[in-house]
Amino acid sequence: MSAPLRVGMVGYSFMGTAHAHAWRTAGRFFDLPRAPVLAAVCGRSPDGVLAAAARQGWISAETDWRVLVERDDIDVIDICTPGDSHAEIAIAALAAGKHVICEKPLANTLDEAVAMAVAAEQARKSGQRSMVAFNYRRVPALALARRLVEDGRLGTIHHVRAQYLQDWIVDPQFPLVWRLRAETAGSGALGDLGAHLIDLAQFLTGQRITGVSALHHTFVTERPLPRSSHGLSGTGGVERGPVTVDDASLFTARLDGGAIGAFEATRFAAGHKNAMRIEVNGSAGTVAFDFESMNELSFHDHSEDLDSAGFRRILVTEPTHPYMDAWWPPGHLIGYEHTFIHEVRDFVHAIADGTDPAPSFTDGLQVQHVLAAVAASAANHSTWTPTEGR
Amino acid sequence: MSAPLRVGMVGYSFMGTAHAHAWRTAGRFFDLPRAPVLAAVCGRSPDGVLAAAARQGWISAETDWRVLVERDDIDVIDICTPGDSHAEIAIAALAAGKHVICEKPLANTLDEAVAMAVAAEQARKSGQRSMVAFNYRRVPALALARRLVEDGRLGTIHHVRAQYLQDWIVDPQFPLVWRLRAETAGSGALGDLGAHLIDLAQFLTGQRITGVSALHHTFVTERPLPRSSHGLSGTGGVERGPVTVDDASLFTARLDGGAIGAFEATRFAAGHKNAMRIEVNGSAGTVAFDFESMNELSFHDHSEDLDSAGFRRILVTEPTHPYMDAWWPPGHLIGYEHTFIHEVRDFVHAIADGTDPAPSFTDGLQVQHVLAAVAASAANHSTWTPTEGR
Amino acid sequence: MSAPLRVGMVGYSFMGTAHAHAWRTAGRFFDLPRAPVLAAVCGRSPDGVLAAAARQGWISAETDWRVLVERDDIDVIDICTPGDSHAEIAIAALAAGKHVICEKPLANTLDEAVAMAVAAEQARKSGQRSMVAFNYRRVPALALARRLVEDGRLGTIHHVRAQYLQDWIVDPQFPLVWRLRAETAGSGALGDLGAHLIDLAQFLTGQRITGVSALHHTFVTERPLPRSSHGLSGTGGVERGPVTVDDASLFTARLDGGAIGAFEATRFAAGHKNAMRIEVNGSAGTVAFDFESMNELSFHDHSEDLDSAGFRRILVTEPTHPYMDAWWPPGHLIGYEHTFIHEVRDFVHAIADGTDPAPSFTDGLQVQHVLAAVAASAANHSTWTPTEGR
Amino acid sequence: MSAPLRVGMVGYSFMGTAHAHAWRTAGRFFDLPRAPVLAAVCGRSPDGVLAAAARQGWISAETDWRVLVERDDIDVIDICTPGDSHAEIAIAALAAGKHVICEKPLANTLDEAVAMAVAAEQARKSGQRSMVAFNYRRVPALALARRLVEDGRLGTIHHVRAQYLQDWIVDPQFPLVWRLRAETAGSGALGDLGAHLIDLAQFLTGQRITGVSALHHTFVTERPLPRSSHGLSGTGGVERGPVTVDDASLFTARLDGGAIGAFEATRFAAGHKNAMRIEVNGSAGTVAFDFESMNELSFHDHSEDLDSAGFRRILVTEPTHPYMDAWWPPGHLIGYEHTFIHEVRDFVHAIADGTDPAPSFTDGLQVQHVLAAVAASAANHSTWTPTEGR
Repeated sequence: MSAPLRVGMVGYSFMGTAHAHAWRTAGRFFDLPRAPVLAAVCGRSPDGVLAAAARQGWISAETDWRVLVERDDIDVIDICTPGDSHAEIAIAALAAGKHVICEKPLANTLDEAVAMAVAAEQARKSGQRSMVAFNYRRVPALALARRLVEDGRLGTIHHVRAQYLQDWIVDPQFPLVWRLRAETAGSGALGDLGAHLIDLAQFLTGQRITGVSALHHTFVTERPLPRSSHGLSGTGGVERGPVTVDDASLFTARLDGGAIGAFEATRFAAGHKNAMRIEVNGSAGTVAFDFESMNELSFHDHSEDLDSAGFRRILVTEPTHPYMDAWWPPGHLIGYEHTFIHEVRDFVHAIADGTDPAPSFTDGLQVQHVLAAVAASAANHSTWTPTEGR
Repeated sequence: MSAPLRVGMVGYSFMGTAHAHAWRTAGRFFDLPRAPVLAAVCGRSPDGVLAAAARQGWISAETDWRVLVERDDIDVIDICTPGDSHAEIAIAALAAGKHVICEKPLANTLDEAVAMAVAAEQARKSGQRSMVAFNYRRVPALALARRLVEDGRLGTIHHVRAQYLQDWIVDPQFPLVWRLRAETAGSGALGDLGAHLIDLAQFLTGQRITGVSALHHTFVTERPLPRSSHGLSGTGGVERGPVTVDDASLFTARLDGGAIGAFEATRFAAGHKNAMRIEVNGSAGTVAFDFESMNELSFHDHSEDLDSAGFRRILVTEPTHPYMDAWWPPGHLIGYEHTFIHEVRDFVHAIADGTDPAPSFTDGLQVQHVLAAVAASAANHSTWTPTEGR
Repeated sequence: MSAPLRVGMVGYSFMGTAHAHAWRTAGRFFDLPRAPVLAAVCGRSPDGVLAAAARQGWISAETDWRVLVERDDIDVIDICTPGDSHAEIAIAALAAGKHVICEKPLANTLDEAVAMAVAAEQARKSGQRSMVAFNYRRVPALALARRLVEDGRLGTIHHVRAQYLQDWIVDPQFPLVWRLRAETAGSGALGDLGAHLIDLAQFLTGQRITGVSALHHTFVTERPLPRSSHGLSGTGGVERGPVTVDDASLFTARLDGGAIGAFEATRFAAGHKNAMRIEVNGSAGTVAFDFESMNELSFHDHSEDLDSAGFRRILVTEPTHPYMDAWWPPGHLIGYEHTFIHEVRDFVHAIADGTDPAPSFTDGLQVQHVLAAVAASAANHSTWTPTEGR
Repeated sequence: MSAPLRVGMVGYSFMGTAHAHAWRTAGRFFDLPRAPVLAAVCGRSPDGVLAAAARQGWISAETDWRVLVERDDIDVIDICTPGDSHAEIAIAALAAGKHVICEKPLANTLDEAVAMAVAAEQARKSGQRSMVAFNYRRVPALALARRLVEDGRLGTIHHVRAQYLQDWIVDPQFPLVWRLRAETAGSGALGDLGAHLIDLAQFLTGQRITGVSALHHTFVTERPLPRSSHGLSGTGGVERGPVTVDDASLFTARLDGGAIGAFEATRFAAGHKNAMRIEVNGSAGTVAFDFESMNELSFHDHSEDLDSAGFRRILVTEPTHPYMDAWWPPGHLIGYEHTFIHEVRDFVHAIADGTDPAPSFTDGLQVQHVLAAVAASAANHSTWTPTEGR
């Protein structure tokens, strides 16, 4: 019998639903060295948190995260709140001796991210593990892409091009939700979508971004105020307020291994729902991925005979593919929430094995440095801006 | 609070794993009128069933299905065993007053299927519900396709063409597992894969198959005996035995609404893992689907202006799409196991509402008649064979 | 300087336009051992044939094909008329000592096809070449597919599945043009589209069809008479007449090398314009093709490591690909008419080299035997019908 | 009978072959108001030009373009040489009273381009027409995309993203051909590939680029000298020389109608042969195109009901599509060279009608200004650089 691993989760809406499912389900399909227990969920609204606990299967509920992080019967704190509360919760949880997993991006500001990384590094000496939840690394197709790069199948990396295309705010009547205000969200498409691109580009290539030139734009500068303050959707009222984040973030980059990159994150690409696309070109081959077909990896082997060379559509459902021996027979797909299950699997292994999970808070901080450089360049007429802390 | 619905499941391997996940998860994402309880799992091996109970989350375990079906604390029997035991278990469960959900195809023989349908019809008078688990009807893209047909978007249906392409026995050294022997599996590609095609073709068109002409073939007629008798994979030994089922089943058909059909089920289509493809052409439009891209529906509206007409790739992830309001934001995919969750959702609603779930055992029997006609035609030089019981 | 090869073409509409372009253009891109000269075009309407001669670049025009075939200054007769006149013209041309290339299918009846094959075989002794114009063999992607099969990349062939999907008569008001009447067209979808499928299935696999079971259907049995008798399009009048050919032809087949086949030809597949699709599965790999993406071949190598295996999209535009060294740099597509240019290239080489071009009239006759067996089976309740003359 | 239009072409290799085919063929498929005559071809090598004349069908040959442009029996000069000779030839031809069509980009330097535009504007007063050969505007799918934008189907344009991906110099042993040296080619991927992207982005959106930030990179800085000086391919020798152009050009841009753009041109994208991709997102819809599937346009109509919305694959082969009434029935593809035929068609119409063909030399000059701004920004650490002359 595995020893239990008692989880306390802060926040229970979109991300919380996904994380709760992962904690509930990981041990049903993977052999885990510790058995996750959904010990407590935390949220400010007493009614809301009780309903979420019942729905998601948590044993207890709290309305104050400070109480949660101090509870003796909790081993792991899982932070699923918006970015402006990450630092405070994570640092307190680490101080209380918990392992911590935190949603991305690590924080809304560089200062917060630095403090979190310092706290994590300190806690690491006591055997506490911390991890930032860039779940896309756990898409089997992207894990396979990384394996192909590591195995040298792509040779020397020349290019990375990545786009994250959504369209949920094309309508100018879409209300001014918290994600469209700088004070709550930090940035717009950049932090929400671009952060994934930056983490993946570095993860896949094994190279770090050293400098950027960026162009930001806000197509709709004023929107109706939302009737409720936190919803992603809903109809706006008659009053209007200013949009204070970027609708789209475009940037070029150089990486420390000699590659160059082209990046674009936007919420104004009509017809694209969640098209997170990334392609890496090397001297020996290419991989390409689109999250809207997340069970597929496109791969070109540049050493093939010209007669039969071509991009392969690898259906990443074979038992030899990353994470896939736990699931269904070949040709049977998995979905979005599986990325969180894989994340939980890896985090639990790291805790049990005493190894460092990736990406660490330090990795998350490095992404934050890139985000800051992008924002600075965009605010300064696309001036080339080196990435600090690299 | 919803009243509990206590489930007893027979069989716990591939299908059992999927069903258990569905019973565990449906209420976490859907509002269910009854709350599923994983009351008991049943299997012949004491060790095996205990391990499965722990892994899948069942409260208790049984080694004799006859004991299970008589237990007072069970409301639903879920049959996940091979086809040769379906009839006996289902009939006993119905006699014991249980609701029954049974894996497809309904049975291995027509006689068994008839007896099951009779028993279900009888039990229906006492308010018991029964359902055959053609889970592909619950793929959102296929449910959407059916809705488009019902809404008249395809007009008069002319064609249905359906292929189920797999490749797991292309290697002649693949062992003689139970699925390749008539005594256990009834038939080969026909019952395993063709049954899905028949059910879906009739579900999507709303028409029933009235006659068929079939061609069966076994490419590899002798295979090494497996070291263990039930595995899908594994290395064969030196002894060999005859393959007594079809490796491939091809048939043409007429339907009672005037459509014609072309069908092909095979385990020898190298490179295809689970390519269940179905297309329906009508006077006003076409829908097409491939299970290897199960979150997509291809749709052509024949009334569109030629200038901008073309097959649309509908990413079936919008909240307005069938079942999808329970899941993630647009553009986030679901996987294979979700079809079982949707099946559980619909079955629980039918039980709570006192309505008949589809497909019923009578529907399953009708598919069985088609399967029998296909097998008879194939055994008789492709002679045109009307479908009885239509 | 190459010796001239003087061509006389009968018929100048759709097929004639394509053939004329091929004769005009082949020598501009390929090194030909004889230089095609567009000597004469022939048609019944004096005005029509003169206009065609000017437009297409023919030196002279004739209104009587009997005069044309007797002209001393003609080396090759190219027959682009409907099927009911093929036999008479071809036999006369062969008797007059000409090389002959004839559009597909070879004839409308078996008797005519037999007579043509006999005449061609006789003329062959005098060094005359004859060829039936199954131009799809000259699609580079399909020629490459054949090469892969010949090279053993597919291993033992198990399956061929082929569909020819069009939609130009879905509208029941589309008029009763000559292609919809048995007396002029012989058959409907079968001879027009199915003939291509049969030739290609045999060409790609290197196997011959030995028997078939077929189902034919006519969805719209009566249509308005066309205002003009020969157009493919145009509005019908108020008078109506019976459709006497098949709208759709479905058949299953066995081939002499052990493969089995599933075939479907239809003009009622809404949304498909010219979707000639063919796939061949072998023990070592698969090839698949769709004419609507005619520059691509899909190829799966079954010997690849599972980790990186997948269907490759081969863009068939490399100089090493069949015919492609004459055209543009890699990645630049060719179109429909190029298949005729390649046909002319091969025919001119055969004439100059004194070798037999493929497919010969004898090959065309064999396809005719298959067509006849399909029609016979369809007329006889799908009864299994062996192919004569194989 | 149409009056002849006598053409003299300078340069006869890759581009010359394509142009010659277009002049020969346009009148065979389109009704032209003037009948093109292949009057003379010009090249420096007497043997080469004579062979080209015979192969391509020119009536006469010249070895000095100065003689050609002065000939009285020539109406049109068609310039197919490398960029460093464009200005001199075009200006002389205009001075000699000829209509001029010139390959892209207009010139290697801004000064040359300005002089050419001035000369063209002057000659325009005498009724002479001039045109820069951005042939991709004449791809039917892209002409259709432009039509959809003009018809308001895309609404307000927000984004254009364009990539031109090739891989022909990934191998570091590929020799230092003229396209890799600044003195002959002006720039690398930028002028060769990026020029197309710039022209198309502006053509499709109807907006002009006002400023850019660019990043250039040369992955292989030294290559073997080629054995012959002009070939695109061939093996290099032992001596090596410096690559003096960009291997890849990335840039972001703002357009004068409020759109923003992301651009990338590279010769280092392994596996991509000629992937010229462009997508435009507007408030009401999106169009996307890939030259490797040049007969298709992807279109999303953002006003569609969510239930059936999705990207349509428009097969641009209907007679209502731009240029396609001259070609084959729906579903039959055209190829690369057809873009030149369409260009000739439009140019001949403009000459006959006395209208201005697009893109004019002035349009070509405006593209040159953008190219210059990109090069300047790349040379200056990605500094934002406004486009002059807009």
